[in-house]
Amino acid sequence: MKLQLALDGTLKDSLAILEKVHPHIDIAEIGTPLIYREGIHAARQIKQLYPDLSVLADLKIMDAGREEADIAFTAGSEYVTVLAVTQNDTIRGAVTCARHHDRFVMADMMQVKSPVERAKRLLDMGVDVLCVHTAYDVQSRGNTPFAGLKTLREALPNASLAVAGGITLATLDDLLPFSPEIIIVGSGITRADDPAAAAQAIKTCLQTH
Amino acid sequence: MKLQLALDGTLKDSLAILEKVHPHIDIAEIGTPLIYREGIHAARQIKQLYPDLSVLADLKIMDAGREEADIAFTAGSEYVTVLAVTQNDTIRGAVTCARHHDRFVMADMMQVKSPVERAKRLLDMGVDVLCVHTAYDVQSRGNTPFAGLKTLREALPNASLAVAGGITLATLDDLLPFSPEIIIVGSGITRADDPAAAAQAIKTCLQTH
Repeated sequence: MKLQLALDGTLKDSLAILEKVHPHIDIAEIGTPLIYREGIHAARQIKQLYPDLSVLADLKIMDAGREEADIAFTAGSEYVTVLAVTQNDTIRGAVTCARHHDRFVMADMMQVKSPVERAKRLLDMGVDVLCVHTAYDVQSRGNTPFAGLKTLREALPNASLAVAGGITLATLDDLLPFSPEIIIVGSGITRADDPAAAAQAIKTCLQTH
Repeated sequence: MKLQLALDGTLKDSLAILEKVHPHIDIAEIGTPLIYREGIHAARQIKQLYPDLSVLADLKIMDAGREEADIAFTAGSEYVTVLAVTQNDTIRGAVTCARHHDRFVMADMMQVKSPVERAKRLLDMGVDVLCVHTAYDVQSRGNTPFAGLKTLREALPNASLAVAGGITLATLDDLLPFSPEIIIVGSGITRADDPAAAAQAIKTCLQTH
């Protein structure tokens, strides 16, 4: 299992956090708000500073799969995200671009109405990782990604799954039985009293499962 | 009717086009790929160079309505886009942010399964403009936004509608009967032999309707 750190603040804040936690994470996520603020330059800079980390550009592509994925991969990202609700042509365009660069496409399953059916279609089209994601805006209502992860894992025993949305060390035990390949943590690390300790504790927990 | 120019290339190319066409357009759209490449800085720079133009930041917000809309408005954008398929909480967050800044939210109707029903809900939540949009990736299959625009106009005679997706001077006549408030043109201007002439011809056509 890999630990992905979602960086959603400013670039300055993100670099300060990374300096503390980089030994404990596997993937640095350039979050959507960070992309909006800084552009793909943030991915390029973080990849240059931490070449041993994988970088994920959370573009949430919806419109122009090949062209937009290319922006992420050309800047050195290993992963780019597409929205699972987008057109199949957009998914195929992003996958084609990923194969060309020997990189990966993660599909964010937010707002998909029939997740198992859509997940199978996405895998058929070459998507590498399916991300069960509880949106930021509905986490405060007590929503979590756990039930969605269970549903996909039971339907797709061998798929690479990622999970995101309010995850902390305290809620890891709810996720681990469903063997996600990637656990995505944002404020559970970035807003912890001691971000390095939080990241290390989560990483240790993942390594012992 | 307003003419919105979608700028999807590099910032350098976008500035070169704007220099030629700015007298003929009403809204400069910082397109999603341009946001990915440059960040919201592109909106700020274009607003500073052309203070009389409105600026739309095509963020296609999906996850964190208030926080992400704030990035666009703080940079000087008059409009921000949200995806109509997102959660209602995200729509409400973006609208709340827009009211705070006295700005506007446009909802991109891409991939909405029941457009009329969803459009009514979006208007109830305070969305200012509904954009009927044929995705870039499916335009090559001959898809156009004309039927979708007709459907929404017939159901919502007074709604502010925008329309996007492969529009050129040659296809304007198909749109005008449905009185969109905003006509969005990208390559129909940026890739024209003479972008200024193309923009002027489209603007003249809109003004005479």
